[in-house]
Amino acid sequence: MTTATTPTPTIPAERYAERLRRFGGLVAERGLVAALIGVGPDLDYLTGYRAMPLERLTMLVVVADAAPVLVVPRLEEPAARAGTRTALEIATWMETDDPHALVADLVRRGPRWTAGRATIGVSDRLWSSQLLRLQAALPDATWTSATAVLGDLRMIKDPDEIELLRLAGAAADRVVDQIASGRLVGRTEADVADEVRRRLHAEGHELAEFAIVASGPNSASPHHAASDRVIQAGEPIVLDIGGALGGYGSDTTRTLWVTGGDDAKGPTEEFRHLFGVLLTSQVAATRAVRPGVAAEAIDKTARDIIDGEGYGENFFHRTGHGIGLEGHEEPYLVAGNGEALGEGMAFSIEPGIYLPGRYGARIEDIVVCGADGPIVLNNEPRELRVVSG
Amino acid sequence: MTTATTPTPTIPAERYAERLRRFGGLVAERGLVAALIGVGPDLDYLTGYRAMPLERLTMLVVVADAAPVLVVPRLEEPAARAGTRTALEIATWMETDDPHALVADLVRRGPRWTAGRATIGVSDRLWSSQLLRLQAALPDATWTSATAVLGDLRMIKDPDEIELLRLAGAAADRVVDQIASGRLVGRTEADVADEVRRRLHAEGHELAEFAIVASGPNSASPHHAASDRVIQAGEPIVLDIGGALGGYGSDTTRTLWVTGGDDAKGPTEEFRHLFGVLLTSQVAATRAVRPGVAAEAIDKTARDIIDGEGYGENFFHRTGHGIGLEGHEEPYLVAGNGEALGEGMAFSIEPGIYLPGRYGARIEDIVVCGADGPIVLNNEPRELRVVSG
Repeated sequence: MTTATTPTPTIPAERYAERLRRFGGLVAERGLVAALIGVGPDLDYLTGYRAMPLERLTMLVVVADAAPVLVVPRLEEPAARAGTRTALEIATWMETDDPHALVADLVRRGPRWTAGRATIGVSDRLWSSQLLRLQAALPDATWTSATAVLGDLRMIKDPDEIELLRLAGAAADRVVDQIASGRLVGRTEADVADEVRRRLHAEGHELAEFAIVASGPNSASPHHAASDRVIQAGEPIVLDIGGALGGYGSDTTRTLWVTGGDDAKGPTEEFRHLFGVLLTSQVAATRAVRPGVAAEAIDKTARDIIDGEGYGENFFHRTGHGIGLEGHEEPYLVAGNGEALGEGMAFSIEPGIYLPGRYGARIEDIVVCGADGPIVLNNEPRELRVVSG
Repeated sequence: MTTATTPTPTIPAERYAERLRRFGGLVAERGLVAALIGVGPDLDYLTGYRAMPLERLTMLVVVADAAPVLVVPRLEEPAARAGTRTALEIATWMETDDPHALVADLVRRGPRWTAGRATIGVSDRLWSSQLLRLQAALPDATWTSATAVLGDLRMIKDPDEIELLRLAGAAADRVVDQIASGRLVGRTEADVADEVRRRLHAEGHELAEFAIVASGPNSASPHHAASDRVIQAGEPIVLDIGGALGGYGSDTTRTLWVTGGDDAKGPTEEFRHLFGVLLTSQVAATRAVRPGVAAEAIDKTARDIIDGEGYGENFFHRTGHGIGLEGHEEPYLVAGNGEALGEGMAFSIEPGIYLPGRYGARIEDIVVCGADGPIVLNNEPRELRVVSG
């Protein structure tokens, strides 16, 4: 029952020490007394440790001008020692201890601690239950996002990260092609979504988190959950799939039209027109990518084309989101985000046009901002794919 | 590629309206102005809506003495309408709107709002990034756990929930038996873990989140992550597996000893003794379950037996955790938790004994507190299973 797959490359171990050192510098530079990093992508980025997010506190405590300490439940100490990819002091707590008091103590012993004047960063994905306990243990501190600080590092992907994103993208492309080449008419969306997840795993993904299979009128719902609806001949399917390979995300969307082998059930003129506008928008936005361009300018490039054709109200989401250890992360391509794109940023470009109750379409690629322009990581044909299904 | 499975039963739709009504009552009774429920098990419990936790705010706003409102991103409106299983007002926000201001406004318009004297509950799994923005939007409020309030309802499982837990447990039992009956020696832990996940899916689980396969010295690490270690003849394997079926969790542990078919490689006397102590402890703790007994008393029953045999330091985790829509939830069977067990509570009973660097063992069942005593949902033999492997 095992599948032969090429071993996935990993981030070199020395990278973690470097990230920790640079993050420690940023924490001090931004005037934070400490950054408290719970289980999740930030912890993975800094230490390589991928723990399950559970109610027991696991927390990397990065105090400004002090060595970082990883606080873990005693029963997970061996797992933490095996799972961290850089040398790190580990402090354990027993089931009847108060781990939040332990963290608070580490923060207060920091060289920059001043009661009543301390700002502490916490990772975005830390559960509120943990933050409320930390706030109770450090009642006179000000709290902010540590992820926003770490984002300065995480947003710029190094070549090893880009290689993982490229592999994840190529794997997702193969799954899109496999699904588009197979039988679709007469099956439920949920059944096709299951096949997508199985195929993503078979193509090396360790996570196959989402598989939007939105057929017919459901294609007008951007985040449609694959349902028991049976796919019919003569309608579009929006296929938006992804997960993670070696920790790094894939996320691609293609729109198919299934005819069931009946030429009379091809795309309507209206749909062809709508799709043509969408493709023009997606390609133009991709071409606009280069260092120094504002994130919101990419959104505007995509949106102006769709607006100009009278579909403005039918494109009611942002153009894209960053991707890396998280499926959605900075930078977001959305009006109001004036952040300039930089070399090594990776993000989706995914305009969509949706006619509620009828149908819709979306095209999505992951794009890396290269020194001279876009590097596109999804390369299945973007044109409306008319298949028998 | 489809697997024939019996359709999983679902919670009847009318249950959600009842839960929402009862929760609204509790919110008012506990003096909360509002409870803010993000994506996760609390939202699922109250509405049936299972959205992916992402950076865009989806939040059920339960204001005391007012009708609940579900705040969702515009692009997820159709998904939310399709995914909620009870009638509910839905308020949408556009990509450039401030959803936290929208939520804050709903809270401040509540009949019990008094600036400077309001306590607001938030769900435990809400991301800190969201809580910090809500705290900024409602700066003079006091914050507490809404999950703790909802826990009064969630802790007591109704017969439909118990049936789902039973089905999930029976499916996990079958997978334990399949794995124990198959080849193990010469395979990596990670390969066996992959097989566990595939089999859980094949047995109807929609989630196969964890598969601890801890062989030889790794069996002394309670939360060991399945590694590239190759399983050898003449050592134990702790198999701790689970996921979710119909939203409800499975979680069971059995300890095997693999001989590779060589009788000379059977369990050591020491291991047999250790395992005998563990089994006595696990069975005694299970028998102690009945309404009115404190959660910590179950822990003490298990612990006293292990302590009495000199293994006290080798059992360094609590005896169990509640289970339902979350893999770990209230009630926790741990010293200090004086909460009395009640009919319909469901939890794990899972003592373990670990000799660091050498080996360890754990036995885990999900147990429901019945009117007259324990109802055990995992029924694979608990004895040390000596297999050729």
